[in-house]
Amino acid sequence: MSDERAEVDGLTIGILGGTGDQGKGLARRFALAGNPVVIGSRNAARAEEAAASLGDLPVRGAENSAAASEADVVIVAVPWDGHRATLESLRSELAGKIVIDCVNPLGFDKQGAYPLPVEEGSAAQQAAAVLPDSRVVAAFHHVSAVVLLDPAVERVDLDVLVLGDDREATNLVQALADRIAGVRGVYGGRLRNAHQVEALTANIISINRRYKAHAGIRITDV
Amino acid sequence: MSDERAEVDGLTIGILGGTGDQGKGLARRFALAGNPVVIGSRNAARAEEAAASLGDLPVRGAENSAAASEADVVIVAVPWDGHRATLESLRSELAGKIVIDCVNPLGFDKQGAYPLPVEEGSAAQQAAAVLPDSRVVAAFHHVSAVVLLDPAVERVDLDVLVLGDDREATNLVQALADRIAGVRGVYGGRLRNAHQVEALTANIISINRRYKAHAGIRITDV
Repeated sequence: MSDERAEVDGLTIGILGGTGDQGKGLARRFALAGNPVVIGSRNAARAEEAAASLGDLPVRGAENSAAASEADVVIVAVPWDGHRATLESLRSELAGKIVIDCVNPLGFDKQGAYPLPVEEGSAAQQAAAVLPDSRVVAAFHHVSAVVLLDPAVERVDLDVLVLGDDREATNLVQALADRIAGVRGVYGGRLRNAHQVEALTANIISINRRYKAHAGIRITDV
Repeated sequence: MSDERAEVDGLTIGILGGTGDQGKGLARRFALAGNPVVIGSRNAARAEEAAASLGDLPVRGAENSAAASEADVVIVAVPWDGHRATLESLRSELAGKIVIDCVNPLGFDKQGAYPLPVEEGSAAQQAAAVLPDSRVVAAFHHVSAVVLLDPAVERVDLDVLVLGDDREATNLVQALADRIAGVRGVYGGRLRNAHQVEALTANIISINRRYKAHAGIRITDV
């Protein structure tokens, strides 16, 4: 959806916290699209196990620091409560790289999900604050892990909102999103408007409960 | 999209702040769907003028208090800076009624739109706090006034997220949204999750600028 689509063929994608369902689902879809993927975890053996669970695809596992070093582009898919500490520990490995934050700071209670307050405004803004030498982009918040991992789903029916203040970086991430069959990367605004995109995941969870769905969003007239 | 669609034929819809473009646009679409509409304004003459500008449709104008009293369901489409005061002044007229808040508390600067902090969490939660005897629902945040008012647009291509804690009320508002050609009302969660739906309007404004569009959202798999 951008005029100046970047070349993303062959980029190696690292996924921090890639042993979780969302990280594993993204790993699977990018590998299906032909990109080499390195799943990162605090524990290399767990990362290798997650990679092996995806079958015959170009995915391997490594410790988070190795995944960050070896990848061209890094996706942050760690649980929210480990977000700041993980990124602080990887500042030098992530320097100069495009870092894609897809973390949704949510709480859960009897009434369902709700957004947690974040000092910096959003997980993506926290990443930008912690990683001043990286190019932080927010994207992939609303993708359903279940759908990404389901072999019966050939095309993933949603738009990925891509937010950031660096046009070249958001263009590249849009192009990456486009590589997942069915998905379209749509520019969604500056990083200061990331909070509501992360928080909207709580609404999508409510929708999923009400309609027994795996909902996503599409942007009309674009 | 609900199992128990309420009967909304013939309900009279009041629109507070209906002289603004969004209010007028909603008035036009509901009137086209056959519902009588009363556009409300602080100034009855301005409300009548706005009603007349819509041509030969069942829309009339009145002071906000009369619009609130005479309507079966009331839409709040006032500017954010008059939101609290307007609702406080209409507490008795709005008691017992379904009140649909579509107000987006946004600020604007050189970089575009951004969400304003709201003490109660969101405009809709502020409405619920100010109107304890009304049934407050949040909806119609993302509809483009330009599209609603454009006679060339026969079908409005978007889903309206409907949020609230009163199932009967959200069902009725979903059914109302469905009356606008092309539109679908989709349950979007509880009122505590209204903030991000209101704030997402800032992202839609960014999308509109980038793509020269009148963007809306659709929910997939529902």
